[in-house]
Amino acid sequence: MSNQTITACIVVIGNEILSGRTHDKNTHWLAGQLTKLGIQVREARVVPDVEAVIVATLRECSAKWDYVFTTGGIGPTHDDITADSVAAAFNTTVELNPQAHQLLKDHYKEQLNEARLKMARIPKGATLFDNPISAAPGFKLGNVHVMAGVPSIMRAMFDSFKHTLKGGPPVLSKTVSGTATEGQIATELTTIQAAHEDVEIGSYPFIKNGQLGVSLVMRGLEMGAIDAVVEKVTALLKAHGELFVDMVEGESV
Amino acid sequence: MSNQTITACIVVIGNEILSGRTHDKNTHWLAGQLTKLGIQVREARVVPDVEAVIVATLRECSAKWDYVFTTGGIGPTHDDITADSVAAAFNTTVELNPQAHQLLKDHYKEQLNEARLKMARIPKGATLFDNPISAAPGFKLGNVHVMAGVPSIMRAMFDSFKHTLKGGPPVLSKTVSGTATEGQIATELTTIQAAHEDVEIGSYPFIKNGQLGVSLVMRGLEMGAIDAVVEKVTALLKAHGELFVDMVEGESV
Repeated sequence: MSNQTITACIVVIGNEILSGRTHDKNTHWLAGQLTKLGIQVREARVVPDVEAVIVATLRECSAKWDYVFTTGGIGPTHDDITADSVAAAFNTTVELNPQAHQLLKDHYKEQLNEARLKMARIPKGATLFDNPISAAPGFKLGNVHVMAGVPSIMRAMFDSFKHTLKGGPPVLSKTVSGTATEGQIATELTTIQAAHEDVEIGSYPFIKNGQLGVSLVMRGLEMGAIDAVVEKVTALLKAHGELFVDMVEGESV
Repeated sequence: MSNQTITACIVVIGNEILSGRTHDKNTHWLAGQLTKLGIQVREARVVPDVEAVIVATLRECSAKWDYVFTTGGIGPTHDDITADSVAAAFNTTVELNPQAHQLLKDHYKEQLNEARLKMARIPKGATLFDNPISAAPGFKLGNVHVMAGVPSIMRAMFDSFKHTLKGGPPVLSKTVSGTATEGQIATELTTIQAAHEDVEIGSYPFIKNGQLGVSLVMRGLEMGAIDAVVEKVTALLKAHGELFVDMVEGESV
């Protein structure tokens, strides 16, 4: 949308997501946060706990996008291989990070054992992220931001470093929803989209109380341009049904 | 786990997921279904409504895995570009599919307009999937299975063709959970994992009522081998806390 566009990729690491055991909620939350910061998420991936796959994915994504955000695999158990994988992706190794070591000592005191010490093994050259919940830090190496998989810890880590992220111009949006179906409005919607290149119109069908409906999301950098499209699509939806009043003009990402 | 392993990739298509507007629930549901069928999901991706990206992703994933499953982008509006993208990925074009055309005629009758006809534009050589909810069919081309993004329609489509999928041996699993933390059990867990190569032990920390706990998931092809590990990890969890009885030995994917 501009040459200041800042892009990102989210990489979720964990067999438990791919097996269907665990429902990943981190992608959705992170995507919303990054959008608000003016950072455009261009892809998201879920990869297994396999070092070669994580390394290849991080190399590809860190070269392609301004920021990469990972979740999962930084705990003390045998299947936590994210730190080693990030180090390998950047052709470095992990070391016992003195600062992380101290954080774990302060938190666990006499209960700091060898397994927990693994959480102080951080790639050389990385900077740490606070973990106000369970002490073991996340970290950043290059443009890769490494966070825990437990959602509350991931969110706390993200909150601790989000002020360091540089966003582009924030993408603004408005949503209008109604009982019209996509098939009734698609042709006119194409005409409206063609007349407003500076606004991206997304059309999202849904089923509510057994009835089809549609949400139209207008996204762009200028609220004036968005409002011009909102006016046209509101008229279009009214011509083919009712508006969902509680969903009209709500700001959404 | 065996040379009969059957693999899959899930590709979710839609800007609304990447912007954080919509929470993708299809990946989780599909991953669970495929696991039950003995199909191992090896990666999942979310890609934007950009033809070049969809084409490149489908080419890469369809070459790499036995099956690819896509959701989203097969409706009648301007941002529905999945059919054209799948065709391009397989170096073919879309055509007005006679069978799909008839389905739409039967469903929409005199309300079948030009926009809705777009949903009968299917890549040449594809076979159709039933859509018992809103008629517009999904389709399969090569090893790529193309489904709607609306979850209820996606599920109905999947149910209509899942009998055609060939799974490998089903991956069996049991879960044991307790109040122990990963840091207390990690060293012994590594020893147990090393002694049981035929069972994959996943360790998943969680926070419940403000307390850390852990779920250990044993996955493998033989229930006898899984049970041998369950016995050991149950003793390990008991040595460091309480078991969550309602979560013990529950079968999970």
